[in-house]
Amino acid sequence: MPVNAQYRLAARPSGLPKDSDWHYTEEAAPTPGEGEFLVEVRYLSLDPAMRTWMNAGRSYVPPVELGEVMRAAGIGRILESRHPAFKAGQDVFGTFGVQNYAVSDGAGVTVVDTALAPAPTFLGTLGISGITAYFGLFDVGKPEPGQTVVVSAAAGSVGIVVGQLAKIHGCRVVGIAGGPEKCRLLVEEFGFDAAVDHRAGNLRADLKAHAPDGIDVFFDNVGGEVLEAALARLARGARIVLSGAVSQYTSAEGPRGPANYMQLLVRRASMTGFVFSDYADRYPEAVDALAGWLREGVLKSREDVVAGGIAKFPETLLKLFRGENTGKLVLAL
Amino acid sequence: MPVNAQYRLAARPSGLPKDSDWHYTEEAAPTPGEGEFLVEVRYLSLDPAMRTWMNAGRSYVPPVELGEVMRAAGIGRILESRHPAFKAGQDVFGTFGVQNYAVSDGAGVTVVDTALAPAPTFLGTLGISGITAYFGLFDVGKPEPGQTVVVSAAAGSVGIVVGQLAKIHGCRVVGIAGGPEKCRLLVEEFGFDAAVDHRAGNLRADLKAHAPDGIDVFFDNVGGEVLEAALARLARGARIVLSGAVSQYTSAEGPRGPANYMQLLVRRASMTGFVFSDYADRYPEAVDALAGWLREGVLKSREDVVAGGIAKFPETLLKLFRGENTGKLVLAL
Repeated sequence: MPVNAQYRLAARPSGLPKDSDWHYTEEAAPTPGEGEFLVEVRYLSLDPAMRTWMNAGRSYVPPVELGEVMRAAGIGRILESRHPAFKAGQDVFGTFGVQNYAVSDGAGVTVVDTALAPAPTFLGTLGISGITAYFGLFDVGKPEPGQTVVVSAAAGSVGIVVGQLAKIHGCRVVGIAGGPEKCRLLVEEFGFDAAVDHRAGNLRADLKAHAPDGIDVFFDNVGGEVLEAALARLARGARIVLSGAVSQYTSAEGPRGPANYMQLLVRRASMTGFVFSDYADRYPEAVDALAGWLREGVLKSREDVVAGGIAKFPETLLKLFRGENTGKLVLAL
Repeated sequence: MPVNAQYRLAARPSGLPKDSDWHYTEEAAPTPGEGEFLVEVRYLSLDPAMRTWMNAGRSYVPPVELGEVMRAAGIGRILESRHPAFKAGQDVFGTFGVQNYAVSDGAGVTVVDTALAPAPTFLGTLGISGITAYFGLFDVGKPEPGQTVVVSAAAGSVGIVVGQLAKIHGCRVVGIAGGPEKCRLLVEEFGFDAAVDHRAGNLRADLKAHAPDGIDVFFDNVGGEVLEAALARLARGARIVLSGAVSQYTSAEGPRGPANYMQLLVRRASMTGFVFSDYADRYPEAVDALAGWLREGVLKSREDVVAGGIAKFPETLLKLFRGENTGKLVLAL
């Protein structure tokens, strides 16, 4: 009987999650009942939103309860199936949790074709990150060709797709990222028109230089000072797409709002929140488009795959909040 | 030669405007040139936005420069005209400034028919306040009959119209106002379904009680804690209409943003700023509709007309920021 190693939520963190916020457990791998199947989880998706699930109080999904296996999306392989629609040997995407084995009744699980793309790509560009980028940019941001699109956490899993999609759409694209190496990568490898290093201390001036006519669409994953700098630079009628606020999730003082939010009035602009899962009935549209662009080579996928198994989970999650990943952060189990 | 008394901007205030921020001057009334006319200003419009015009830096209009006559809208009577489209004896609306007499070339000036309604009504319900309420509510807020509309500064010149228009539209309407007397008035005289006193110390609980299904449209004139309380109570897909932020204009610590703005994501909601003047080509639509509802008696106009002439200007303006007015605050000259 294989051992199922798990990370459970031991305490609700303040700021960054500490080792003591996790409880490592081992138990026997579960056995699927009638209408269920057993998955061996192979790749865990590490997402900034996981930090919000650790807080008490309902966000767009319920919180993870104390003592529960930490929620996480992942890609796994079916070892044994008693479900009519799934069979052993299939690779599947689902919210299997931070553990080696999971039993599922198939709800929210999709089969992925790892002959088309490597498994981690289905957690990033062909998964939630890509879907988030696609609907957030096109349906909420509504950029027009020739307009200026700015994206924060631009070297992150969502941002790196947003910027490339905006280029494909004919926009001028400026990425905001942390550090010169990420900025170089965005411009040289991913075709961004410019990249601004928010750690360089000249965020507002740099944005002004690279978005001289103002920002038409700001796709925000960060919040805080980055959001304020973008608000100060909006073009008239701009759209801010609220996709995340990673700078705020681990703030010990608690979240703060953008002090200059009344720029929305000055610029006749809007700020709109969205959640990718509202577009579930249109996922195929997004995945088909993204897969097509990948095939054509106009879209590049980038995953940051960390080896080392489940024991690396607490430490690897912190890379997200330190901005150490480029592209989709994945833990290989 | 009549004397033209004026208030000019002497200094840029921090917080509430002080007496020393004003410079009172008297000069001879001006003489109209060819293509101009002379107006005797009879009623001054007092608006929260005036405080933002006193700051350096461009908002949606340029700032008032130091030494300039303070900008203000008003209603006046033409004493002498050398302009082909205007004649002596006509009552006109325009941005004539805080002074007794002004010369105009007619730009931005409209003739008002004071046989239809008293002159102060053209500064409120049939003027900028009514136009702001009409386009902000219907074009930006887009309420549907049966939905819950909440408006802040509900007893102010814009809010009192917003609430009544939302009732005419078939919505459930909750006003947020300061003090029990204003709240009583909103419900008993202006037909609001409920009113919440933000000074009573139970804002969030009171909003929950009166908007049990959440807020579909929040029309905000206030910002600060009131905006945060509304964000915490949004229905899914809610629209926040940003019309003003009077609580922030005189804040000595500077403006602050809503700490819980990520509720926009949780609730898939939007926050959109607008300025009434963008709808200039549709003013007749709004004024016709508002005048029709006034005639039918389903819309009541309320003006708070302060007598005493121009010397009362500095003191009367402060009534706005203390929340002492009910309906449109007007100074009779």
